[in-house]
Amino acid sequence: MNSSSLSPPKITVIGLGNLAWSLVPALQRVATVHQLIGRRHLASFQSAYQIPLCSDTIQDLHSETDLVFLAVGDQAIPSLTAELAKLNRRNCVYVHSSGSTSLDALSALGEQIGVFYPLQTFTKGRVKDFEEMPLFLEGNPSVLSLLRPLAEAMSQQVYMLDSGNRLRLHLGGVMCSNFTNLLYRLTDDLIQSHSQLDFTIFEPLIREQIDKVFALGPAKSQTGPAIRGDERTMQKHLDLLEDAPEMQDLYAQMSRMIRARQ
Amino acid sequence: MNSSSLSPPKITVIGLGNLAWSLVPALQRVATVHQLIGRRHLASFQSAYQIPLCSDTIQDLHSETDLVFLAVGDQAIPSLTAELAKLNRRNCVYVHSSGSTSLDALSALGEQIGVFYPLQTFTKGRVKDFEEMPLFLEGNPSVLSLLRPLAEAMSQQVYMLDSGNRLRLHLGGVMCSNFTNLLYRLTDDLIQSHSQLDFTIFEPLIREQIDKVFALGPAKSQTGPAIRGDERTMQKHLDLLEDAPEMQDLYAQMSRMIRARQ
Repeated sequence: MNSSSLSPPKITVIGLGNLAWSLVPALQRVATVHQLIGRRHLASFQSAYQIPLCSDTIQDLHSETDLVFLAVGDQAIPSLTAELAKLNRRNCVYVHSSGSTSLDALSALGEQIGVFYPLQTFTKGRVKDFEEMPLFLEGNPSVLSLLRPLAEAMSQQVYMLDSGNRLRLHLGGVMCSNFTNLLYRLTDDLIQSHSQLDFTIFEPLIREQIDKVFALGPAKSQTGPAIRGDERTMQKHLDLLEDAPEMQDLYAQMSRMIRARQ
Repeated sequence: MNSSSLSPPKITVIGLGNLAWSLVPALQRVATVHQLIGRRHLASFQSAYQIPLCSDTIQDLHSETDLVFLAVGDQAIPSLTAELAKLNRRNCVYVHSSGSTSLDALSALGEQIGVFYPLQTFTKGRVKDFEEMPLFLEGNPSVLSLLRPLAEAMSQQVYMLDSGNRLRLHLGGVMCSNFTNLLYRLTDDLIQSHSQLDFTIFEPLIREQIDKVFALGPAKSQTGPAIRGDERTMQKHLDLLEDAPEMQDLYAQMSRMIRARQ
């Protein structure tokens, strides 16, 4: 191991899900992805990315692998770690890519463990470029000597972050992408059930709100009835949601929180 | 009145707030804005947009005005309408620009009343182009014969919408811009208080989520622990919010709503 300063590391990616569709080509640009291990989509990946070794079992983990990338969902990390530990391969670095999983979830694999967390939402069929993507690394100095040059070759935004702050960051990501998406979905439902309008009419508004947030910051970008204390408009909205008590609650709660941050 | 088919209407804009900074130049491109009435920013507007007549009192409303644009905040519409009614000018059309205010809020001004609602968030210093902006109109046929050609000259997206559905649309706008902004603010606070990271690291994630929403639709764009039913990750997030019960409640509620829409 630790041929990182001499030649690009040889990488095995385990898990062929949403992340892997973007991660594999991004890794290929700066290193050698010589093996994929996964059950679903194995043939599609092999043909899309021309990976020499493909397998559906971790028993086949290649002996020359420098870096094993666990690109599986958070929930699969414990069982995969236990399986890998049984192989007893200590000549490589193991990293996971989960924002909400601490480094020590991999501790059954020894000391050469790390985290490589990309702050992004990944979707099959939407291959994301890593160039501008913030990457958050964790590991001991020996692990980082392999991981950091790799990450810095992939992205201009590489940060060291411990497991506690990574979880905090991940929570922020949930609020900024998963929870905002719920609001879009609620809006979509609200509109579609009562008129001929399509959710796409909100696109200029949503894109301008985002542009404003990154130009002025979130505190200065707050507008709307709640921040103005416009009780009359808020009451009209609440009345409109009379048949949707859950949305009514959410509206009242978010409006209170906006008002409290005036 | 009703010289609309012969020459562009002469417009008086009342209210020089966030909307007016974008509305006035957009109207100037397709009509004649010959008068501005407002208290604050009057000199700035006059010099920025070269409007012939500027006044700080509605008593000065010009006798040749075809269209009076109430570009004031929702809360100011009733009192402004009452003041205008006292002038007893019936030779022009009056429109307001509020999503949450019904057409009949202007009924003291007679029959020649309408609504011109742009679905956008407006900010001083961020002049928005109206070309792609959805505009929602309401009024009787005579009013629309003036308003519709004007709106269609300004934007490619012009819709007729009654007051009830406009309120619904406005509520959607609140969810898609004001409430999402609260989530950005909460994230900003979460990050800034506990690490050296800046909110801008969320920009690639947020922009990708938006791109995905408009490519796949909100229902298919939902990811994260709640939709996966990943109770372990959700519990970690809730534990992290132990000292912030309001955010903890919001997290639990939004996660429940996402889960229910699986």
